[in-house]
Amino acid sequence: MLENIISPIELHKFTVTELEQLAAEIRQMILSTVSKTGGHLAPSLGTVELTLALFSVFDLEHDKLVWDVGHQAYTHKILTNRREKFRTLRTLGGISGFPKRSESKYDAFGVGHASTSISAALGLLIASELGGEHRNVIAVIGDGALTGGESFEALNHAGQLKKNLIVILNDNEMSIDKNVGALSEYLSQIRLTPRYRQAKKDFETFVKRIPIPSISDRILHTANSIKYGVKSAISAGGIFEALGFVYIGPVDGHDIKAMQETFTRVRELNEPVLVHVHTVKGKGYAPAEESPDKFHGVGRFDIESGELEKKMSPPTYTSIFSRAVIDCAKVDEKIVAITAAMPSGTGLKTFSEMFPERFFDVGIAEEHALTLAAGMAAGGLHPIVALYSTFAQRGYDQLLHDICLQNLPLTLCLDRAGLVGEDGPTHHGVFDLSYLRPMPNMSVLAPKDENELRQMIFAAVKREAPIAIRYPRGAGVGATVLKKPAPLPWGRSELISKFRGEADAAVFAVGSMVEKSLKAAEILKYERIYVNVVNVRFVKPLDREMIIEQAKAARILVTVEENVLSGGFGSAVAEVLTDENLPKKLLRLGIADRFVEHGARSELLKLCGLSPEAIAQSIRENIPPKKDI
Amino acid sequence: MLENIISPIELHKFTVTELEQLAAEIRQMILSTVSKTGGHLAPSLGTVELTLALFSVFDLEHDKLVWDVGHQAYTHKILTNRREKFRTLRTLGGISGFPKRSESKYDAFGVGHASTSISAALGLLIASELGGEHRNVIAVIGDGALTGGESFEALNHAGQLKKNLIVILNDNEMSIDKNVGALSEYLSQIRLTPRYRQAKKDFETFVKRIPIPSISDRILHTANSIKYGVKSAISAGGIFEALGFVYIGPVDGHDIKAMQETFTRVRELNEPVLVHVHTVKGKGYAPAEESPDKFHGVGRFDIESGELEKKMSPPTYTSIFSRAVIDCAKVDEKIVAITAAMPSGTGLKTFSEMFPERFFDVGIAEEHALTLAAGMAAGGLHPIVALYSTFAQRGYDQLLHDICLQNLPLTLCLDRAGLVGEDGPTHHGVFDLSYLRPMPNMSVLAPKDENELRQMIFAAVKREAPIAIRYPRGAGVGATVLKKPAPLPWGRSELISKFRGEADAAVFAVGSMVEKSLKAAEILKYERIYVNVVNVRFVKPLDREMIIEQAKAARILVTVEENVLSGGFGSAVAEVLTDENLPKKLLRLGIADRFVEHGARSELLKLCGLSPEAIAQSIRENIPPKKDI
Repeated sequence: MLENIISPIELHKFTVTELEQLAAEIRQMILSTVSKTGGHLAPSLGTVELTLALFSVFDLEHDKLVWDVGHQAYTHKILTNRREKFRTLRTLGGISGFPKRSESKYDAFGVGHASTSISAALGLLIASELGGEHRNVIAVIGDGALTGGESFEALNHAGQLKKNLIVILNDNEMSIDKNVGALSEYLSQIRLTPRYRQAKKDFETFVKRIPIPSISDRILHTANSIKYGVKSAISAGGIFEALGFVYIGPVDGHDIKAMQETFTRVRELNEPVLVHVHTVKGKGYAPAEESPDKFHGVGRFDIESGELEKKMSPPTYTSIFSRAVIDCAKVDEKIVAITAAMPSGTGLKTFSEMFPERFFDVGIAEEHALTLAAGMAAGGLHPIVALYSTFAQRGYDQLLHDICLQNLPLTLCLDRAGLVGEDGPTHHGVFDLSYLRPMPNMSVLAPKDENELRQMIFAAVKREAPIAIRYPRGAGVGATVLKKPAPLPWGRSELISKFRGEADAAVFAVGSMVEKSLKAAEILKYERIYVNVVNVRFVKPLDREMIIEQAKAARILVTVEENVLSGGFGSAVAEVLTDENLPKKLLRLGIADRFVEHGARSELLKLCGLSPEAIAQSIRENIPPKKDI
Repeated sequence: MLENIISPIELHKFTVTELEQLAAEIRQMILSTVSKTGGHLAPSLGTVELTLALFSVFDLEHDKLVWDVGHQAYTHKILTNRREKFRTLRTLGGISGFPKRSESKYDAFGVGHASTSISAALGLLIASELGGEHRNVIAVIGDGALTGGESFEALNHAGQLKKNLIVILNDNEMSIDKNVGALSEYLSQIRLTPRYRQAKKDFETFVKRIPIPSISDRILHTANSIKYGVKSAISAGGIFEALGFVYIGPVDGHDIKAMQETFTRVRELNEPVLVHVHTVKGKGYAPAEESPDKFHGVGRFDIESGELEKKMSPPTYTSIFSRAVIDCAKVDEKIVAITAAMPSGTGLKTFSEMFPERFFDVGIAEEHALTLAAGMAAGGLHPIVALYSTFAQRGYDQLLHDICLQNLPLTLCLDRAGLVGEDGPTHHGVFDLSYLRPMPNMSVLAPKDENELRQMIFAAVKREAPIAIRYPRGAGVGATVLKKPAPLPWGRSELISKFRGEADAAVFAVGSMVEKSLKAAEILKYERIYVNVVNVRFVKPLDREMIIEQAKAARILVTVEENVLSGGFGSAVAEVLTDENLPKKLLRLGIADRFVEHGARSELLKLCGLSPEAIAQSIRENIPPKKDI
């Protein structure tokens, strides 16, 4: 059936039974593809019926649909001319895992980070109106993304404008892990409202039965004049009504007919409306329904057994972080840990079980996470805040204004720094060195391997200032991890590999790039190109002495970083060379001034010239012939 | 009376009448100081009684009080050992206009940007608890700051933790201008609740009068079982209750006795509570009560007449922006304008009156402002977003992820870029060049004068990509502004002043520093030091050719910018010099790697080495003796 659909508008003609059949086909396609490519399985399985209901009621040729985060939009992709390409999901040159304007006209707004959909949809709606066009604009947002403050800002604004914005709250009780926050409890209470509604109905029936009509009428009339009471009572969505939205729900998000009826009604409204849809994350695939967190974003897996493909053999940086934080917390009561909806992803799950009183999952709320940490630090604690590099961008101002300005102790652990691979440009953590370096009082560290990550965490938690440690996604290099790490010489880089005489190049490599640079040096050695390799360790404070020393010891300097070149580590070295008036050729390797697409991390590193071979090649090309010097 | 208060705890012994007398004294002191120093008058006049009530109930030696933004904390400052120094408010070396941890132990948390207080207070509360100490922690937040998403994130988290956090909502119906958003309407409805409460009471009384007790009992019982209905009905603060807070209010924020009674009750609660206090911005000073927006933050003024001291004679950059945007909007329907609670401050007031349909004040909500703009741009409009540079930091991720990644057309006008003066380190806009430069697709412009600002705005709105224009606070240089600006050669800098032969230095000056650098060149000319001056105009895209050309034409290169040195414009020039292997001494002038205090802008420029004299001095010191070359 799926194969015959050319335009999404065709779904308008489908019966509910046909749509249900289609749902089964789509689920099958998602499962078979994602089991091979990896991807956001559970969120997308949860929205199959929701997508079909939306497509069968709204006119996607004209109306605009914005998916929050976008990891639940696989059905949308399949139904909008990407069925054939769906098998290329998240692979280099294939289709993206997220809606993307450049990929399809049906992707009204590109997404990746949470909580942007209501703002963007409101913007699209305003643009339509000013352009004199009437269209429905729909934002679909999860209960997880709703915890991000930007959603609230947008609801507050949209509620005032009173335009016909349609917000679908896709409530599956989960962010990536179990959703948190008071609002989440509130929503679960609402889901119990059928019982409450019955009570209300009973009340009215009962009052009407009072034998004296003047009394019963007056009771009901007075009850209705209790404006807030009654409003909340009718809708059970008082918080949204307070923000100016009509609340409708909860609706079963797997009952296509019920949703169609609701959406048809909603389409005709002329004010902001929030439809509360209750879905099951991972719906229709037993292993995902049982462990929606595990199946939120997965690698390859076996469909039959639900077994995920074995993890890489060296432990991940995340797991090393996980252990180190626990070991530090055991001996230091001041240590607390904060995550923004990612206890598993950031490696704080075990910590949360061992130290429940000292662990805080604030939901998708990086701004709050960082100011909360600042408050804790002002109160004498040492917070460890674990975020993905790309999501830490959300807390830029809080880092600068609340933490650095007050020079408060905090260890910010930035996982997934650098190129993250299949999640692509919305998720690459390639800006952190550039935005952290200008912040006064901040230290910025990057470990060359697992052991150094542990060493850095041990050192950081003892300091009375803000420190950021950034490390890449995935497996480490297989280094031996010492239980008791050696002290870290603060602000000092490490000369790992040194040629006896004048080297052809001195390579300053940051974190993940140390291993690649050592391999590049190996390659070049066979060509009699001799390279010193420095493990930078501290992007800030900068080891100026080492830079000056190597500027004298080598013919050219090279910097290698998994970060944009603009304002990054190489830029810091350029600053030193020009400040010191050291006329030395500097080759800066890193990410050019453009967004990097999606694909396997190894492929992307190669594309960006950051594989050992590419690094070697760049050095080779830039060494001046000996006679030139 | 004021003079005898040594510790805030003494206020516990004051009678209400004495506190009222004290309020009058404090108001007098605030008025007489601020009329001379300038400052945040109206917000601080509005919280005199609130502060006294808080101080007389809570134990400030032990409890902790966090003021959101902090511009309402003058009474707090006067009562906590800074009475004597109060006359130094906001002056160089004097006390800060905001609470500051380094200034007083009573300043529990440093503030300046809105919406951080609930997060910080929650952090302080958690730290106390983990440290085994019981104390009250109170956040005072305005209804304006409440619109910032971070507040919502914090409420959502605090509501779940169920700790005894006390949030005082200081509702004066204003941000800087009239407050906006659905929540604001909701609060004003609540303020009318006495009427509603009466209705509820009537209802209950009425039901109780029903002659058959079994009926009346059952009605009331059933009514109580309607959980949400009743909860909202009792409190009228349903939105806060949905977020897990007990709601109390509204309380008259100028009735000390009423507040004392409420706070005493609240002090004993063991769960999160929000007290809704209704205050009048500018209270007690007629001109400020009448025009609270004008008196929000003021310069010197005459107390008697309420006349503000005349503005500087060359028009401000803000006013030039104001005119230019209107002129562009007249001929281009696609132009819309967005501000985050600052229609007056950013100069969009007139625009809002002329084009009400195309103007959007989103409240204190920079994240939403930028994603909203992205949505509008995706819908075919060209949004102009006017923010202060320091507040734009709040939207870092939205700029990068929603706007630059999708390469959407938008003109971001960053007012108050550089050193803002008296507001100090929380408000200096000295990071924007560093954080904008690494964003792919972004252009970053800085005008040398008023005319160039207009020229840049005219050019920016015609382009199909994101553009940021940054300009300083205050008056321009007095340039003639052409109604019809000449086209702007995109990406090209401008060689303004050129020595005939080899110059001693080529100075690349960014925006506000062009005028200073020209003056420095004048000074040096008398000493036979010859300086070329380049108006940079484009920090991005960079005019590499001009840099290379000047590296050949002058003995040293100098960059001057009102931005941190790390990652700023000078850093971009260092990148070019090292990339091109041009061995040239580069002197980078700008803000060093530390936070700059408060004081007059001219004083701070001098302190940072950015006055004409200081620039001349630095150049003089760095020109090598002629024979060295």
